Amino acid sequence: MAKDKRKDLDLLLTVEWKDNSVVMIDQTKLPNKLVHIRCTHYRQVADAIKNLVVRGAPAIGVSAALGLALAAQNSEAKTLSDLMAELDTAFKELRATRPTAVNLFWALERVMRKAKNAKTLEQARKAVLLEAQKMWQEDVEANKEMGANGARLFQDGDVVLTHCNAGSLATVAYGTALGVIRAAKESGKRLSVIATETRPVMQGARLTAFELEHDGVDVSLIPDTAVGYMMARGAVKRVIVGADRVLRTGHVFNKIGTYQVAILANQHKVPFYVAAPISTFDFESSPADVVIEERSVDEVTKVGKKRVAPKGVRIFNPAFDMTPPQLITGIITERGIIKPPFEKNIKALLA
Amino acid sequence: MAKDKRKDLDLLLTVEWKDNSVVMIDQTKLPNKLVHIRCTHYRQVADAIKNLVVRGAPAIGVSAALGLALAAQNSEAKTLSDLMAELDTAFKELRATRPTAVNLFWALERVMRKAKNAKTLEQARKAVLLEAQKMWQEDVEANKEMGANGARLFQDGDVVLTHCNAGSLATVAYGTALGVIRAAKESGKRLSVIATETRPVMQGARLTAFELEHDGVDVSLIPDTAVGYMMARGAVKRVIVGADRVLRTGHVFNKIGTYQVAILANQHKVPFYVAAPISTFDFESSPADVVIEERSVDEVTKVGKKRVAPKGVRIFNPAFDMTPPQLITGIITERGIIKPPFEKNIKALLA
Repeated sequence: MAKDKRKDLDLLLTVEWKDNSVVMIDQTKLPNKLVHIRCTHYRQVADAIKNLVVRGAPAIGVSAALGLALAAQNSEAKTLSDLMAELDTAFKELRATRPTAVNLFWALERVMRKAKNAKTLEQARKAVLLEAQKMWQEDVEANKEMGANGARLFQDGDVVLTHCNAGSLATVAYGTALGVIRAAKESGKRLSVIATETRPVMQGARLTAFELEHDGVDVSLIPDTAVGYMMARGAVKRVIVGADRVLRTGHVFNKIGTYQVAILANQHKVPFYVAAPISTFDFESSPADVVIEERSVDEVTKVGKKRVAPKGVRIFNPAFDMTPPQLITGIITERGIIKPPFEKNIKALLA
Repeated sequence: MAKDKRKDLDLLLTVEWKDNSVVMIDQTKLPNKLVHIRCTHYRQVADAIKNLVVRGAPAIGVSAALGLALAAQNSEAKTLSDLMAELDTAFKELRATRPTAVNLFWALERVMRKAKNAKTLEQARKAVLLEAQKMWQEDVEANKEMGANGARLFQDGDVVLTHCNAGSLATVAYGTALGVIRAAKESGKRLSVIATETRPVMQGARLTAFELEHDGVDVSLIPDTAVGYMMARGAVKRVIVGADRVLRTGHVFNKIGTYQVAILANQHKVPFYVAAPISTFDFESSPADVVIEERSVDEVTKVGKKRVAPKGVRIFNPAFDMTPPQLITGIITERGIIKPPFEKNIKALLA
């Protein structure tokens, strides 16, 4: 994976197809260095997803789709069925990178469906790349539409708390939750954002604070322990977060800590919004079906090379949690805002 | 301040008077190194308190008292009034080190009262050291009594969540909240502890996990973002925390994040206990009178030398928050357990 330092700091494109390769911002290096990596093999994309070089449900989905495009491009298969066998291997490896966000499965299946419909080797190869690029484009469009839909929920002068990073860096560009904030700002409303650090991986400190500062949005950073304190002081007017998976019942799986932010919002009568594109919805699963990823203990015991916990201590490091529908004020999608009762209204909107 | 590596790892004495100096564990070096510093001037003690070399309300109180003893010992005053003037300077500097924990003020005033009652220079000098040493001794005794009182609240097999470090390292030895856990364990109950990391200074990861592992108490560490998740899973049976200040109304000031843990406990019907010696009670102040310390942004933007937030981002770093009495199940003191209604029962117990 060659490194590629960009001069163009104005444009934060999380992932793109460029010169027959997949180029991504290496998010593990932020906020200290804005560097890109170039993947020329789908396994590099799989590693990038596993190691959080790229993260955020929509960005993972598009990256995995582009990973399949790399597999198709690199294939030396002579027959369609050989190509399909290779794609299936790549599909399985990419699918196994992370278990919770549903966009990953959705994106891979969508690309594979296109390949399966192809009549010839060359058609299949082209269809995979085209579909992945189409999804790349759709992601930005969906975020803009979500932004337009959600922006009207905010008032001039609002202070909005967000957890983790559901921003430009969690998508191809623009963002889901932060896309709504960008759209509200573009519509002329002055907003301030409070970003939680989001231990253990610090996406709030490293990514949200970085991208909002980069884009000139007023942002303050607080430790995850200060959410209740800020709400008790009346310093938070609204909460908006992204989602890794939304069930038909309105249960939202998102970054660990989202659930407790939702409880705190509820206790302090602060509206709690989720911004999630349709690709994040899972109509099949029940809460118990969703696997909550347990990540490496190193994320908790070390920050960079510095050890912050004693060696050998037992760690629980769940990466996601579930927020039940009764704590959610509304779910913002590219098709509109879903309000309670969620089960009924999700069905109606997405029918 | 000379460094003094101890071989005796079995004994965690946070602070002590030794060879005419104040010897402390340097808690900023934990969990990686167990090293001690030796203070021979009260200003070194003041710096140690400011820089969190020593922290925890009771440990700060005793350290400050021993700081006054250093001032008395080092004084070249020829008259009682000159000594009192020097002590008053030291008193003011030590008192200004941290604003929230009340034990600091209580301890300094108690020592100064003894000095003021002295008739001669030599009497005053001796009285200061004797009173500080008495408080050192009383701290351990109070913790043992609190432990005995609190231990009966726990059941065999309980999983107990604690926030920050209200342990041996927050006191002279044994601890307040963790003292109760030690006492429960000594009484034959098997307990497991879940320690929150406690951003930004990581007292849970660095200190609580360290001292409980050191003493053979079963401990797991979680990010602060996982408290709600663990409670939703039913994995937490009780919460116990320390306190930096308890008001006559039962409002508890403690480490930032305590308030939200209390809300989460309340929502999940998990009993929430506070362990606080009488020296932590403040009968004068109302909630609005208590200054919440705002600490350096560096605590949030950097972990060790690693920068985890973009340069220049605005930070809120309140060190404490307030938990209202309605979220508290009981306050464990060396004189007994205070139950609601707190205002009435605090008055009755401490009359």
